[in-house]
Amino acid sequence: MTGPDPASTAIVCIEFQNEFATPGGKLHDAVKPVMESTGMLEKTVKLTEEARKRGITIIHAPIVFSDDYRELSSAPYGILGNVKAGGCFKASGWGGAICDAMKPAEGDVVVEGKRGLCGFASTNLDFILRQRGVRTVALSGFLTNCCVESTMRSAYERGYQVITLTDCCAATSQEQQDAAVKFTFPMFSNPMTADEFLAKFEAGK
Amino acid sequence: MTGPDPASTAIVCIEFQNEFATPGGKLHDAVKPVMESTGMLEKTVKLTEEARKRGITIIHAPIVFSDDYRELSSAPYGILGNVKAGGCFKASGWGGAICDAMKPAEGDVVVEGKRGLCGFASTNLDFILRQRGVRTVALSGFLTNCCVESTMRSAYERGYQVITLTDCCAATSQEQQDAAVKFTFPMFSNPMTADEFLAKFEAGK
Amino acid sequence: MTGPDPASTAIVCIEFQNEFATPGGKLHDAVKPVMESTGMLEKTVKLTEEARKRGITIIHAPIVFSDDYRELSSAPYGILGNVKAGGCFKASGWGGAICDAMKPAEGDVVVEGKRGLCGFASTNLDFILRQRGVRTVALSGFLTNCCVESTMRSAYERGYQVITLTDCCAATSQEQQDAAVKFTFPMFSNPMTADEFLAKFEAGK
Amino acid sequence: MTGPDPASTAIVCIEFQNEFATPGGKLHDAVKPVMESTGMLEKTVKLTEEARKRGITIIHAPIVFSDDYRELSSAPYGILGNVKAGGCFKASGWGGAICDAMKPAEGDVVVEGKRGLCGFASTNLDFILRQRGVRTVALSGFLTNCCVESTMRSAYERGYQVITLTDCCAATSQEQQDAAVKFTFPMFSNPMTADEFLAKFEAGK
Repeated sequence: MTGPDPASTAIVCIEFQNEFATPGGKLHDAVKPVMESTGMLEKTVKLTEEARKRGITIIHAPIVFSDDYRELSSAPYGILGNVKAGGCFKASGWGGAICDAMKPAEGDVVVEGKRGLCGFASTNLDFILRQRGVRTVALSGFLTNCCVESTMRSAYERGYQVITLTDCCAATSQEQQDAAVKFTFPMFSNPMTADEFLAKFEAGK
Repeated sequence: MTGPDPASTAIVCIEFQNEFATPGGKLHDAVKPVMESTGMLEKTVKLTEEARKRGITIIHAPIVFSDDYRELSSAPYGILGNVKAGGCFKASGWGGAICDAMKPAEGDVVVEGKRGLCGFASTNLDFILRQRGVRTVALSGFLTNCCVESTMRSAYERGYQVITLTDCCAATSQEQQDAAVKFTFPMFSNPMTADEFLAKFEAGK
Repeated sequence: MTGPDPASTAIVCIEFQNEFATPGGKLHDAVKPVMESTGMLEKTVKLTEEARKRGITIIHAPIVFSDDYRELSSAPYGILGNVKAGGCFKASGWGGAICDAMKPAEGDVVVEGKRGLCGFASTNLDFILRQRGVRTVALSGFLTNCCVESTMRSAYERGYQVITLTDCCAATSQEQQDAAVKFTFPMFSNPMTADEFLAKFEAGK
Repeated sequence: MTGPDPASTAIVCIEFQNEFATPGGKLHDAVKPVMESTGMLEKTVKLTEEARKRGITIIHAPIVFSDDYRELSSAPYGILGNVKAGGCFKASGWGGAICDAMKPAEGDVVVEGKRGLCGFASTNLDFILRQRGVRTVALSGFLTNCCVESTMRSAYERGYQVITLTDCCAATSQEQQDAAVKFTFPMFSNPMTADEFLAKFEAGK
């Protein structure tokens, strides 16, 4: 046994969109402190570059809406209520675009359909993973305890080997970041850093 | 109460794309005889126009792929194998575009993510229907016994009131069209013509 | 290449319950002619016995309801409407029990939760298949164009290698049996007989 | 309009089984401190009694396994790995049985199939809720940040009005209980106490 198989592994990059990742994005200030504490943007950029070289599939999972949020209830509550009230993640605007640093490269897969929080619930993610024979998914992105965590929980239930990349995600407070990494990540995944993840594939070469 | 509620009703238009619906499309000749026998294209155009006036949501569900079909297995079998072998439904080309007669109107919803046959399996369709409070779905499109039927079966399992519009769909042979309408449509839906469907909403006015 | 892997293969036996399979069952007379034309009960009994010897997992998927059908709408339509109207498949009665010839053996898996038609939609089937690493599913049972076909369509969408065992299933008329085997089975599966299926594993020994 | 509709409301009681809820259960000591801090067992017993009188559906969602855990991977990880390693929740034993205080009453619904954490992922819960026209689900049980939270997240994505009953659930530490109630419950639900929930239906009478 010389390491996991890159051909059956994918890194899922959740919502690396300007709204979160770039100064000027409507939610950037809220996540900036944790982004800086983990260095998640730079680490994920480097991770995906290295991973592509090893044959690991990179999957992008942005969330977008029509300008009038017609995909949602007329009176949404909870986190989707906040998204609509804030006018966030419009497909037509800069805020909904994937940030420059994480722009999809040739050969990457962009998951379509994401209107909810879980990366599986309203998308073609599971279909694509199954078709391509992916068994191991490594998760990164925003927010640690919202979309990343919902995707982690669903991936675990669907029988994937799930890895959560602890320094490639961010929440709106360090307290929330720490609670997710400490309490729920170990129940539904194998948590590790980007370096620890890559080292598994070094070993496998 | 004198009829169903248009606000909780949607017509789902499946794969009215050039590949099927327009002369020159790769699969057009195969479906042309049944299209002509039912008059399905003209009937669905008229139906959706009338339905919009009554406040019924029109939903479009096209299927598309990357040029290299990276969303599929490297060796797909069955109907998806045929799609890839034939180079059909590329997102980048004319064949994958919705045909002119059925172009989405302002306010329509276009479902994203469809890479498989069932309209629910790889898309945001269920999410959008639930968010918008839709309880009744009327189905039209291509192919009667493939994508329309898979969508019908899934909609039924998910608790919707399902209507199949018998003269708004087409298969690759009259024999297949007739078998679906006669045998499976009644098990998982209330089959009716476009005129019968609209009459329910006339009555309700 | 010496044949498929029995450890990642399962045979799913759908609704081999007295209601269908045994004289006296409420729906037995309806399926009896096709059962006899295919010899499906004897063939499936023999198939599962041989398959267990080779290490293939046998999965049973019965459908059952409470005596008052509280799991269903108060006014179900379509095939579930017929089930309720006929008082069929009560968990508490003989009709809902798996028939003697197909009683689960030690080590078989019995899928729980089936209240709808598709073997995946309301059960733990997908969870168990994924957990156990099953990639190939062979389908048998009742009705060819209802529950067997819905399960086939869903299995295909979920990325399994799907085999439909053409002489291990039955419908309520030969015309329905033939239409399913001829038209829809090839779109969503690799159809074959029980003998052809077993021969693949002989070859692999 | 003077309150929500009990006919479209259900209380989902997750894993009120001896393993968690009763002294002697393998996981009881772990949850006992939070059970006592919230008084969750007594409160849920009283809540369900009052709710039945108002016509609200009570749904029980226990998790159980075969004695050899054949429904799981041979080498499960994360929380299911712990369940198997500890020999917990066997269908054949006392630990897997619903505790005496929460035994299902006549007319309650018992969800079948639960082998994973989310109440929807491997069960017939969604099928039953949709069939019965349930739009609002109130959640209670074990563990606050594991199964209750996974069920909450999935229910939200599926378009239900989700209520989390903050004093009717328990985690394995007060810190985990507090983190879930403070951070994730408000994103995916309307959190409230059992008394606040019941008061909505008093008002509606």
